[in-house]
Amino acid sequence: MSPTYDTISFLSDYGLADEFVGVVKGVIRTIAPHVTVIDLTHEIAPHDVRAGALALARSVQYVPPGVVLAVVDPGVGTERRAVAVEVGGGSGVLVGPDNGLLAPAVAMSGGADRAVQLTDAAYQLPSPGPTFAGRDVFGPAAAHLCAGVDLGDLGPAIDPITLLPGIVPLTRVDGDDLVGEVLWVDRFGNAQLNVDPEEVATMGDVLTLRWSDKARTAHRVGTYDDLGPGRIGLVVDSYGLLSVALARGSASDELKLHAGDAVTLTPAAGGER
Amino acid sequence: MSPTYDTISFLSDYGLADEFVGVVKGVIRTIAPHVTVIDLTHEIAPHDVRAGALALARSVQYVPPGVVLAVVDPGVGTERRAVAVEVGGGSGVLVGPDNGLLAPAVAMSGGADRAVQLTDAAYQLPSPGPTFAGRDVFGPAAAHLCAGVDLGDLGPAIDPITLLPGIVPLTRVDGDDLVGEVLWVDRFGNAQLNVDPEEVATMGDVLTLRWSDKARTAHRVGTYDDLGPGRIGLVVDSYGLLSVALARGSASDELKLHAGDAVTLTPAAGGER
Amino acid sequence: MSPTYDTISFLSDYGLADEFVGVVKGVIRTIAPHVTVIDLTHEIAPHDVRAGALALARSVQYVPPGVVLAVVDPGVGTERRAVAVEVGGGSGVLVGPDNGLLAPAVAMSGGADRAVQLTDAAYQLPSPGPTFAGRDVFGPAAAHLCAGVDLGDLGPAIDPITLLPGIVPLTRVDGDDLVGEVLWVDRFGNAQLNVDPEEVATMGDVLTLRWSDKARTAHRVGTYDDLGPGRIGLVVDSYGLLSVALARGSASDELKLHAGDAVTLTPAAGGER
Repeated sequence: MSPTYDTISFLSDYGLADEFVGVVKGVIRTIAPHVTVIDLTHEIAPHDVRAGALALARSVQYVPPGVVLAVVDPGVGTERRAVAVEVGGGSGVLVGPDNGLLAPAVAMSGGADRAVQLTDAAYQLPSPGPTFAGRDVFGPAAAHLCAGVDLGDLGPAIDPITLLPGIVPLTRVDGDDLVGEVLWVDRFGNAQLNVDPEEVATMGDVLTLRWSDKARTAHRVGTYDDLGPGRIGLVVDSYGLLSVALARGSASDELKLHAGDAVTLTPAAGGER
Repeated sequence: MSPTYDTISFLSDYGLADEFVGVVKGVIRTIAPHVTVIDLTHEIAPHDVRAGALALARSVQYVPPGVVLAVVDPGVGTERRAVAVEVGGGSGVLVGPDNGLLAPAVAMSGGADRAVQLTDAAYQLPSPGPTFAGRDVFGPAAAHLCAGVDLGDLGPAIDPITLLPGIVPLTRVDGDDLVGEVLWVDRFGNAQLNVDPEEVATMGDVLTLRWSDKARTAHRVGTYDDLGPGRIGLVVDSYGLLSVALARGSASDELKLHAGDAVTLTPAAGGER
Repeated sequence: MSPTYDTISFLSDYGLADEFVGVVKGVIRTIAPHVTVIDLTHEIAPHDVRAGALALARSVQYVPPGVVLAVVDPGVGTERRAVAVEVGGGSGVLVGPDNGLLAPAVAMSGGADRAVQLTDAAYQLPSPGPTFAGRDVFGPAAAHLCAGVDLGDLGPAIDPITLLPGIVPLTRVDGDDLVGEVLWVDRFGNAQLNVDPEEVATMGDVLTLRWSDKARTAHRVGTYDDLGPGRIGLVVDSYGLLSVALARGSASDELKLHAGDAVTLTPAAGGER
């Protein structure tokens, strides 16, 4: 067997306070010592499959060819399937639970070429208990794929169409309004919306944002520091989506705006209020 | 000198907010550029030797052959010894302070073959101050071992029997009760007990847990999601020990159950209460 | 082109909760697969250029030869320059924003040999938005340097004297007092001062510390555990500077002493009070 991949990009909700991530890496290195593991993040909120799927979708175009290992797995030990999904004509394989976590990243990679269910115990660790699939099932599968094991040896083929789809929230036009949603609040407090700049191209440079029972005026600007102090801005962020921002401050804290919140955008009636 | 090990598995209480871990890795890479460092965790609570020892014991069977570097060291700069302990016929060496941190992992690795005190300044960095032994003593020792320096060159041999033992809390039978202890609460709020499932095999599937002045009924289940919403369960966790769990929630938060708490298990009188 | 460096030491304020760090590493590995990235820290407080500059200065003497990538960049997307600065006769290059972040580390490395502004789009990623320069500008520059691209190819040379200097707070003598400042509070609560032990050599072993409206007696000791319980100490820390410490406790929490606080040191009138 000759090695096929040399990078595993790893995302999980394991956190860094426990040794979970380190143990998975130990297992990987024991099976496939030539592999470099890139940590995408492990601070996805526990069991938050949606946040994990979105982070993975934002990352996937920047990860090197190889294996993506993703574990946010509230249903560990139940009937949810463990899967590996090949994409890009074999340039990559995504390994994780079949609970929607992988779906947006698979779609962004051009869709699934083939998929298998991870059932062959020969490529798993014997488990004292059923609750640490990253160590016992997913990590070993990712490592064996890098070591040259064929996808088809890990378990029976499954029809990619049966993979659980991810939920990507769509915007909605309502009269003059565009109704979007906060996808993600980053460390700096920027609130990324599911809104393409094209969707608000005709609304002008000053918009009204409404969410919960609140409203604020926001200015379309090129970058954070184009905003005056305390001003709310709408910036095209580094993923090409509209993001609610505050210069050198946290828009999320200032506006009490959180992931999942619905946000309505309208052209402002007459500028600043 | 030819390299002997190519992996250092690293655990500490340094946290990730400061540059401590990065600096130790810089020192290691300068001495032994071929080495890959695996972070087990660095978020052990400051100076919590017991928590560090338990995390290391949980990890050790999954780390690749090589060096384990562990630093939780409240006595840094005092007379506590800095040591390196060889295990498994040379398949691994554990490096750290002789304060009980390494002891459970050494025991799980089959016991110490030989040990030395890290005193030879030739294998240490000159210290501006005596307080960062990870950078100046332990990290360099780990790296030099990987680069091919013999254990015996790092300092004088010490009798492994003089190494400070770790404290592993034992369960106790008290009439019909089994008295255990919470070893660890993980990120998901599962509270691992020092209880082997065999010890409660005759207690049936419904048990009463008592701790502090509280009591709750708990159900033996196979995995987290076998519990109904809000139900407390006893799961055999991924290390083979009994763990108090709540489906898709934090048992620790719900029950105010923390590491070190004594927990009494009894067969429940008549099922659910 | 032949590879020139094989290590990138990476510091930022990106945090680990988002995938920023992982994405930058993915970009680096795609350009320069032979490189090992050492994380110095990514938990610099958002936009805190001073804290980042100090952490980098503490680290720089311990990083291996190669590239240092540092990103704390409140002015991202504005006119602030993106730069690469060669030091040590080519033994290292520092890459980051020209906002003072790199300056103390450059000085500690012997000063800049040459510097360029990172403007050549051929060595950058096309950006959907202007706000993630670590991914689109700095990370690619660091990787291309490792892959063998010459510094001069990344953009036009700039005179190192035009680089923004860092601000290193100096102590001040005021009668019998020495007025210093807290540079850094580490995870263990030790408060590092900008005070060289030589500066207080004639003050004796018992000093009075004053800050805000508070005062406490502090004892010069060799290491943390030389302090009795609850006693405040002054220790020469692992960087050779005076640090306010409490044995097995947090001096910062106990004394409400934080980074940036001014602290006055005086010989104590008559020992303990």
